[in-house]
Amino acid sequence: MRLRLMEATVDSLVELGWAGTTTTVVSRRAGVSRGAQLHHFPSKQALVVAAVEHLTDRRRDDMRRHAESLPEHDRIRGVLEILAAQFVSPVFFAALELWVAARTDADLRESVAPLERRIGRETHAYAVELLDIDESRGDNRQLVQATLDLVRGLGLAASLSDDAARRSTVLDSWAAVLERELDQS
Amino acid sequence: MRLRLMEATVDSLVELGWAGTTTTVVSRRAGVSRGAQLHHFPSKQALVVAAVEHLTDRRRDDMRRHAESLPEHDRIRGVLEILAAQFVSPVFFAALELWVAARTDADLRESVAPLERRIGRETHAYAVELLDIDESRGDNRQLVQATLDLVRGLGLAASLSDDAARRSTVLDSWAAVLERELDQS
Repeated sequence: MRLRLMEATVDSLVELGWAGTTTTVVSRRAGVSRGAQLHHFPSKQALVVAAVEHLTDRRRDDMRRHAESLPEHDRIRGVLEILAAQFVSPVFFAALELWVAARTDADLRESVAPLERRIGRETHAYAVELLDIDESRGDNRQLVQATLDLVRGLGLAASLSDDAARRSTVLDSWAAVLERELDQS
Repeated sequence: MRLRLMEATVDSLVELGWAGTTTTVVSRRAGVSRGAQLHHFPSKQALVVAAVEHLTDRRRDDMRRHAESLPEHDRIRGVLEILAAQFVSPVFFAALELWVAARTDADLRESVAPLERRIGRETHAYAVELLDIDESRGDNRQLVQATLDLVRGLGLAASLSDDAARRSTVLDSWAAVLERELDQS
């Protein structure tokens, strides 16, 4: 039931945005009584933060499975595809609603800022692992950070219109840059 | 009076977010009567779209003045600083509120999507001009696009916490990459 509530929350954020996502809408979508919902999550804030956290973690597990089938040839381009896919996924658009709402809501920011930092750290560690590089060499650390800022920017660009063709050429070019610039020895 | 209304709109979006920005709040902040406000902008949508458009254009004029004092030495790093500054400015956070609201509001998206494309095109042309490169050479066009996606991602990261130190090291490293990768001959 917790899971159903969290999935309904992310769906609602994606479709209706922050303002349209109320606990009433979510409990109806999840087919859960108001009482049961309040038992699991006492407020909209608790519900949304838990939902974004849980589904981001789950999505990372999914990516881990994709990563198992990365080709040896053009591995970097494959990694970029996996990373970029995270930032055009429903859970990213749900998180975007939460991040933006938290910018102007001090209460919400208090629970969202540590979550955003944790997700950032974990995504960074995951990118290093996928790229199979030593972070302490050369500018590798900064290049991974730049890569994640890039795919975050691409995600934001994709939020208003289908940007897939442009995204693909940008990632092709970025992969070639990383191929040359990462210290992979 | 139009200008005062548009400035109050951007200030309100930055401080109160999309939901907190009502035509009543804006006319009070601007010290303009409701009637006069409705005369200039018949709806919240008209007001916000006009405000983000006008202030983005004006901000670009400001940047143009900064660009005049770019040093010959380390010019690329200076350009990145100017571009990144646009994406951590109040008008970017105001635009972010508008973009995110438009994602789940089809009516709003109809007026916002062309605006977002126009701003994107103009920022791209401006970046090419600042970098003083020929876009048709090598991967220059993709590198400029990637740079703008990168600074957009950095802007989003800056919306929740002060990210200036990290941003600075990412931009240092990216400037060195562009120095090597751009076809500047």
